[in-house]
Amino acid sequence: MALCEEENNSDSTLAFMKLAIEQANDALNNLEVPIGCVFVLDGKVISSGRNRTTETRNATRHAEMEAIDELLKNWQDNGLSAMEISGKFFKCDLYVTCEPCIMCASALAILGIRSVFYGCGNDRFGGCGSILSLHSSQGKGFECTGGIMASEAVSLLRRFYEQGNANAPKPHRPLQISK
Amino acid sequence: MALCEEENNSDSTLAFMKLAIEQANDALNNLEVPIGCVFVLDGKVISSGRNRTTETRNATRHAEMEAIDELLKNWQDNGLSAMEISGKFFKCDLYVTCEPCIMCASALAILGIRSVFYGCGNDRFGGCGSILSLHSSQGKGFECTGGIMASEAVSLLRRFYEQGNANAPKPHRPLQISK
Repeated sequence: MALCEEENNSDSTLAFMKLAIEQANDALNNLEVPIGCVFVLDGKVISSGRNRTTETRNATRHAEMEAIDELLKNWQDNGLSAMEISGKFFKCDLYVTCEPCIMCASALAILGIRSVFYGCGNDRFGGCGSILSLHSSQGKGFECTGGIMASEAVSLLRRFYEQGNANAPKPHRPLQISK
Repeated sequence: MALCEEENNSDSTLAFMKLAIEQANDALNNLEVPIGCVFVLDGKVISSGRNRTTETRNATRHAEMEAIDELLKNWQDNGLSAMEISGKFFKCDLYVTCEPCIMCASALAILGIRSVFYGCGNDRFGGCGSILSLHSSQGKGFECTGGIMASEAVSLLRRFYEQGNANAPKPHRPLQISK
């Protein structure tokens, strides 16, 4: 997995990550864990998502799962077949403010995404190198680049956890964040 | 992880697995990969699910994810808070005909399920011992018992793959099945 310094990132990479950060900001403003993402196909954002675990009372509704569902719904509404959807996913890139967790990384691998760009790492649940390396699984992997606008992503998470996660169902342990 | 011989399983374990097999059968009859499951709370089935990847054109719609969404919707419709939902999950058991994949096992761990009983193992994607052992993760694990009515679960999968998976978006390699 590549870890990028910001000066090496292209304008478009930073532009898409800024949109993901906007999603994370929207989550923070709604008292959700501030993680956001956008899916990009042919240079255009085709879906976006942010953490909604509190609103949905479903701990698996991470930003990526929200954006995946929006994306698939759009394609299905447009009448795409399973094979066409599979072909489109293979050309999609995901920009997400925090390293996908094991569940989300596995879902992205199942769907066959082309590449993932993320901000900060997730030392507790990360599925793209921190805990498991699902992106590099044989036959089901995807390209993965971390460290893009990581300080902005960390800053949002710090603001959330410093104010306390009132919605945490169990006594909260702070998320360990790595750049 | 315990691996059970059928003569050691209680009547209720077999009864719940039979209901999961019925779900898998329903999947087979609809040309879906035949995997089914039921969630049980206080001795009662509270939701069921079966693979719907073809119908939904979403490769992540595994039986467990279907049943989880039904379960959470019911609890939310009844006005349960996130904390109450978390408390209920901790008393839930899942009966599923095939070992949960990495994505589903991770989702079950995130939600905090109490225990999982499964039929056959999944040597390619299994998250409960075959590839990864997400059930035994520190702090996020769950009890797991495999090998319950495994031959019935394998028989359904063989029937599906022998007839050919017409819906597979990519050239298909047969699922490796272990008991």
